[in-house]
Amino acid sequence: MSTPATRSRENTRARLLDAAAQVFAEVGLEGATVEAVCERAGFTRGAFYSNFESKDELFLTLASSLGEARLNSVRERVSTMVGSGELSVADPVDLVRRIMDSGADDRMGVMMLSEIRIRALRDPGFSVAYLAQESEMVGSIATIIQDIVDAGQIRLRVDAEQAARLLMIVWEGMTVRDAIDGGDADRLRSAGSEALGRMVELLRE
Amino acid sequence: MSTPATRSRENTRARLLDAAAQVFAEVGLEGATVEAVCERAGFTRGAFYSNFESKDELFLTLASSLGEARLNSVRERVSTMVGSGELSVADPVDLVRRIMDSGADDRMGVMMLSEIRIRALRDPGFSVAYLAQESEMVGSIATIIQDIVDAGQIRLRVDAEQAARLLMIVWEGMTVRDAIDGGDADRLRSAGSEALGRMVELLRE
Repeated sequence: MSTPATRSRENTRARLLDAAAQVFAEVGLEGATVEAVCERAGFTRGAFYSNFESKDELFLTLASSLGEARLNSVRERVSTMVGSGELSVADPVDLVRRIMDSGADDRMGVMMLSEIRIRALRDPGFSVAYLAQESEMVGSIATIIQDIVDAGQIRLRVDAEQAARLLMIVWEGMTVRDAIDGGDADRLRSAGSEALGRMVELLRE
Repeated sequence: MSTPATRSRENTRARLLDAAAQVFAEVGLEGATVEAVCERAGFTRGAFYSNFESKDELFLTLASSLGEARLNSVRERVSTMVGSGELSVADPVDLVRRIMDSGADDRMGVMMLSEIRIRALRDPGFSVAYLAQESEMVGSIATIIQDIVDAGQIRLRVDAEQAARLLMIVWEGMTVRDAIDGGDADRLRSAGSEALGRMVELLRE
């Protein structure tokens, strides 16, 4: 059972992450300061540094939690579809659309990932944490893909991990492109699903 | 025939682009200022603004010229291989490696593209120029792919433009990942070629 102290700590972290998302949306990663995030959340720098080591760790945690939320919703849909026998890959674009469809605002997610990646490219210290988080994400996607394969719905020409990495890269590349092109959340989701569906088609045996 | 004035203008642009590459490598896109580029190149701000509208235009031109140089070397190799009958897709990874192998430092290219994309995501005015340049790049890659298809060496499951976009996204995604992982120029080239080769395998009929 969580103690009141743990709950309070969780609450502080959640409020800091929420404030970080707002500040990021307004000024980007370079512009966002620990001070601005603290001010938005109503905490002191002391409270910040007892929860996060640095601004980098804060934003990596935020990106990770956005990705996790996305993956949880995908995992739930796949599990429901496998359970009810609704999971058919006859039309991969339609399947991907039904699996990926959620209220998530992917624009913020891809912007944040893009900016975090620059930091990781420029800072070898940060790159270790970035790559660890990316591996975890690829592993989670690979598990979902393996669940679909095991449900006997599809056979792939590459292993689940390679498929996961390719699908992640293609989804992100296409989503970023449509975000630059001014696409709203609906169009981003639909363009991302279409690209992923075509990629699934190529990956099928 | 080019006049001395044209040659001098070309020379000024080339020196500004060269200086921009150096400044970018040192401090990144956010940190690079028009002043720093001018100082490095030994030109006044007046000379800069008679050649480029803005810092964004300078770096988009630089990214484009890095991409063009890469494409020209690829185009030449493909043309030589088609001419001599050496172009065989029996081993796609090996083929891609031979086509892509050049002295290019892809690390700077992918870093610059990543940073330019952030600018395009945040600035709708700049996004138009970015997307135009990206379309041109996709078109050039599609032409090379179509040349290979026409040489009768390969049949694809998608059209040349879709193949071009997928290959571009996969190459970039994999190269960025290896750059973050501290890969040197050789490892980046080899990882990029391997990923592209596997993708070509998936794209083949």
